[in-house]
Amino acid sequence: MTGESAKVVVRKVEGGNAHTVDDCVAVEEPLEIRLGYSRGSNRVRRSISITMRTPGHDEELAVGFLFTEGIIRDRDCIESIAVGVEQSGNIVTVELKSGVAVEIDRLERHFYTTSSCGVCGKASLEALKLSPRHPMPPPDEPRVPASLVHQFPALLRDRQSAFASTGGMHASALLEPSGNLIAVREDVGRHNAVDKLVGRQVLAGRVPLSGTLLFVSGRTSFEILQKALAAGLPWVAGIGAPSSLAVEVADSFGMTLSGFVRDNRYNVYSGAGRIVEDV
Amino acid sequence: MTGESAKVVVRKVEGGNAHTVDDCVAVEEPLEIRLGYSRGSNRVRRSISITMRTPGHDEELAVGFLFTEGIIRDRDCIESIAVGVEQSGNIVTVELKSGVAVEIDRLERHFYTTSSCGVCGKASLEALKLSPRHPMPPPDEPRVPASLVHQFPALLRDRQSAFASTGGMHASALLEPSGNLIAVREDVGRHNAVDKLVGRQVLAGRVPLSGTLLFVSGRTSFEILQKALAAGLPWVAGIGAPSSLAVEVADSFGMTLSGFVRDNRYNVYSGAGRIVEDV
Repeated sequence: MTGESAKVVVRKVEGGNAHTVDDCVAVEEPLEIRLGYSRGSNRVRRSISITMRTPGHDEELAVGFLFTEGIIRDRDCIESIAVGVEQSGNIVTVELKSGVAVEIDRLERHFYTTSSCGVCGKASLEALKLSPRHPMPPPDEPRVPASLVHQFPALLRDRQSAFASTGGMHASALLEPSGNLIAVREDVGRHNAVDKLVGRQVLAGRVPLSGTLLFVSGRTSFEILQKALAAGLPWVAGIGAPSSLAVEVADSFGMTLSGFVRDNRYNVYSGAGRIVEDV
Repeated sequence: MTGESAKVVVRKVEGGNAHTVDDCVAVEEPLEIRLGYSRGSNRVRRSISITMRTPGHDEELAVGFLFTEGIIRDRDCIESIAVGVEQSGNIVTVELKSGVAVEIDRLERHFYTTSSCGVCGKASLEALKLSPRHPMPPPDEPRVPASLVHQFPALLRDRQSAFASTGGMHASALLEPSGNLIAVREDVGRHNAVDKLVGRQVLAGRVPLSGTLLFVSGRTSFEILQKALAAGLPWVAGIGAPSSLAVEVADSFGMTLSGFVRDNRYNVYSGAGRIVEDV
């Protein structure tokens, strides 16, 4: 095992032939995220989440998760981040500074449901409106040439080292409007790849991400859009399809959402004002 | 909106051309699963899970989830299943019979971590060993000709109606060793598609599923294998890649795991004894 990929012996069947070869698979291991914070004069430490992830960039994953879930606002909230030496390094503890207030309600993973707002797509959107977040830039910022979007898949593919060897990784990329790739993260979990990407920027003091674009290797769901919204990220594009609720979040909050970005084509579901079509 | 798919207006960009058309996206809505059960002489009702899913087959999803998470053993545990008429039908309440014991610990989603067993892949496997489950059939049952596996993608594609219109659905199929398709379920969530499939069989009194095969449209992760294991399902095949932990679960419990089942080829990661290679 080399961290991101593990060696396996497989029986390869090709048509009517079969042979045994060495191969690689994407590593999947649980990560527990713990949060330490002050409650009155006491210090509290509790488990917030366990996610199945690919090891690596675990501090970024923990910070990104806490940030996109609205539990921390920026890096100034953080006192320290510790990766446990026991448990195969599968525990990350984020200690908040003593003055930082933590909304206990937000520690519940499924924050978008409360007895008052009900359980439906509309309620999910309403819950996002109530959550703290960075303002979106104007509907025509940042502007990107339509032709540049066609290049996103190739830009991502060039940097997907773990996918190349395992075929089993989701990838997320943060891009500048010029097409410059800021960072790429790979993970067996789609949401983890986005959290790692955002977490790195939080740690570097670079949020909100209002001048950047998020490109993901798979589909775009409510949760991906919610994470982008939390980071003030106005542009989400995916190689795969969006869900109905992803389109509704993008529409409601003035975000640009593109899907099926591959093979020299794509669809724009919301926020077309940020795309400069060639004339 | 027609349940599984919703109409949207999109700007389609193809090379240097763009035009506006009507299109469809996969519907994503939250579903809350509630469980009613007896504790002493009291009747308790609590929220167990909220999952983002595609509406439809919600009773199956709720029952499948409760079953694959080890909370219910079979349909005889169930008194009634009610789909709420309020909240857009996004609440399903499963009432258990008064004599049925519920392990409160199992109600926690991430059952594979406890302070005693730690957080790592090995601990995840150990937790599965302790969970109630159906025994696996012998390592050469059921036997399937290698050539039949090549046909799984075409069998699934023919039945993926929602995927065809939206491109945004995961699908799971339950097959007999003859290649006969028992059922197909589609959902924006990979795990939900499996839970719907298994839930239907639980409701029909057809578990364990020791004589059947599970074929999924995407990748195979720990959670997919864990759900198959809970159902006594010895054969999991995916169009996509498996994770390291999926391979370990299959190895540890005598299950067959195939990946990259597409384009007339596939890999067998575990349990090759159930595949009859052509001679």
